Amino acid sequence: MRATLLYQAGDVRVEDVADPKIQQPTDAVVRIVVGCVCGSDLWPYKSQPLTEHPRQMGHEFIGVVEETGPEVRTVKPGDVVVAPFTYSDGTCENCLRGLPTSCVHGGPWGVAGVDGGQGQAARVPHADGTLVELPVSEDSDLLPDLLTLSDVLCTGYHAARTAGVKAGETVAVIGDGAVGLSAVTSAKLLGAERIILMGRHTRRTDLGRDFGATDVVAARGAEGVEAVRELTGGSGADRVLECVGLKDALVQAAGVVRDGGTVSRVGAPQYPEVPFGFPEFLRNITLTGGVAPARAYIEDLMPHILSGAIQPGRVFDRTVALEDVAEGYRLMNDRDALKVIVRP
Amino acid sequence: MRATLLYQAGDVRVEDVADPKIQQPTDAVVRIVVGCVCGSDLWPYKSQPLTEHPRQMGHEFIGVVEETGPEVRTVKPGDVVVAPFTYSDGTCENCLRGLPTSCVHGGPWGVAGVDGGQGQAARVPHADGTLVELPVSEDSDLLPDLLTLSDVLCTGYHAARTAGVKAGETVAVIGDGAVGLSAVTSAKLLGAERIILMGRHTRRTDLGRDFGATDVVAARGAEGVEAVRELTGGSGADRVLECVGLKDALVQAAGVVRDGGTVSRVGAPQYPEVPFGFPEFLRNITLTGGVAPARAYIEDLMPHILSGAIQPGRVFDRTVALEDVAEGYRLMNDRDALKVIVRP
Repeated sequence: MRATLLYQAGDVRVEDVADPKIQQPTDAVVRIVVGCVCGSDLWPYKSQPLTEHPRQMGHEFIGVVEETGPEVRTVKPGDVVVAPFTYSDGTCENCLRGLPTSCVHGGPWGVAGVDGGQGQAARVPHADGTLVELPVSEDSDLLPDLLTLSDVLCTGYHAARTAGVKAGETVAVIGDGAVGLSAVTSAKLLGAERIILMGRHTRRTDLGRDFGATDVVAARGAEGVEAVRELTGGSGADRVLECVGLKDALVQAAGVVRDGGTVSRVGAPQYPEVPFGFPEFLRNITLTGGVAPARAYIEDLMPHILSGAIQPGRVFDRTVALEDVAEGYRLMNDRDALKVIVRP
Repeated sequence: MRATLLYQAGDVRVEDVADPKIQQPTDAVVRIVVGCVCGSDLWPYKSQPLTEHPRQMGHEFIGVVEETGPEVRTVKPGDVVVAPFTYSDGTCENCLRGLPTSCVHGGPWGVAGVDGGQGQAARVPHADGTLVELPVSEDSDLLPDLLTLSDVLCTGYHAARTAGVKAGETVAVIGDGAVGLSAVTSAKLLGAERIILMGRHTRRTDLGRDFGATDVVAARGAEGVEAVRELTGGSGADRVLECVGLKDALVQAAGVVRDGGTVSRVGAPQYPEVPFGFPEFLRNITLTGGVAPARAYIEDLMPHILSGAIQPGRVFDRTVALEDVAEGYRLMNDRDALKVIVRP
């Protein structure tokens, strides 16, 4: 089959790889109908050194089950399914606690003999724990919306949930990428009264307003902090959802959160340490969040998509064929696209 | 009156200072019956450069109200009262949220014309917001227990409360100082089933066992982490209460907490940044805590002392007269005493 490989920074290729086959009795093989490029794919796309053993890229996909191992019970050939961005057994201590990203038998796509999501098909380990059946056909118009259940919608929701967003609160969202916009949607779902989106790309922040942002602050750094302080009568936001992953974004988060408030980080950390020392201690700032346990949220969020209450798939503004996936990376890296669908 | 002044590291003196007087209509003047030395007093005791304007030391005291300003309503001359380790108005947005340490009119003892707690008396700003009447006489045997409401018991309780300790959980407490031991008491109050105290001073950890610790781990660093992992079947503790304030203690906390668990820090940070980067992000570790809003907890905790259910005053193992306060500092700094009472 054809799949996406990253050889080094800027060097994405589509090549032939081995067809996926059932290897374990708990595996399924899924033909991929729709995948996409993630903001987090851009970190290695910007920086990866040359390798002779390139990783299969992609960790978000919807597909049709083609074959299942003898122990698979919850999905069957022909089912349309969504895969979260890590696989997990659904039965270990951490999965049962709602933290499938820490599954003792789980892992990421694209390494250790597991396929990626930007290809024609994938072997899915622990299919019962990993896959969720979708009540739609493979040509449904809802596929882009449902594809956000793989990652970005669940990641934004994780930010809002772990931050403890409650009805009537003021929430600041840092970052106007697909995760930031999903965080806006999620904060609104949880009843936030005021949602301040911090971002400087008008096309994106306009979509953020459609998703529920009540205010947009384009300024960054001290100027951005000042603007949010002004909007909140000097107090700051109750909850801050940090959807970037850079240290500057954490500093900004500390600047805009109120005393006793919570910063939830869901941007993959591009920093070794968190700049929360004595001042944040004196202000009782909580830091929470982390990699989103997407699998744990899919059933909660899907009904809002099926009912049309939210349209998280609007973050996809371009579609490329699998053979053109390199162009998809370029579009996102150059900010010519917000998020790109890949159709095998 | 006589009061304690710190001139530089190791140089504590008792000298004459101005007698406290009512300055604002919301002030009270309190004659101090009992004060104490705090572990946090040892940071400047170890490091402060020479100053010609020494700070009045001490921030924990019980006393008798001598005089009140015309706007004071909740306490009157003759009342026995306890003061939390910061003063606060009780009416601002942050006080009403339960965060008096962020009071917009509040502050610390011993600076800006406010007296310290290691002296004969103190002017108490915002007496209504700050002081809590105690239903005991000034010669009560419960005074040492009640004095812990000023700081250490509330600080340990803040760690347990913000960590979200729930009935049946496993809690690790890092540090066997007075705050760590108070955190053990607090975790037990909140129903923790297993309390692992990490500390290496047998006299202190023995007291910790009396307070409710079910296990003691003397080892530190990787060895200590390994020991806690073994005690918890490999998973780690649900909640970790960090009662030291050093970066090594945070690293240890990250090592012993389970995936998805919470680290609450109440040790005053002697570090500029928190070493919680990508690994802790992947494990969904939450960092909470901060300076304890002691005033918000006093009414909750006092009944447990009055009923005899807890004896937090057992952390006091020495008493010195005010004129001998320098010896009290030396005893604590040399670890010859756990916590020292100062009697004016």
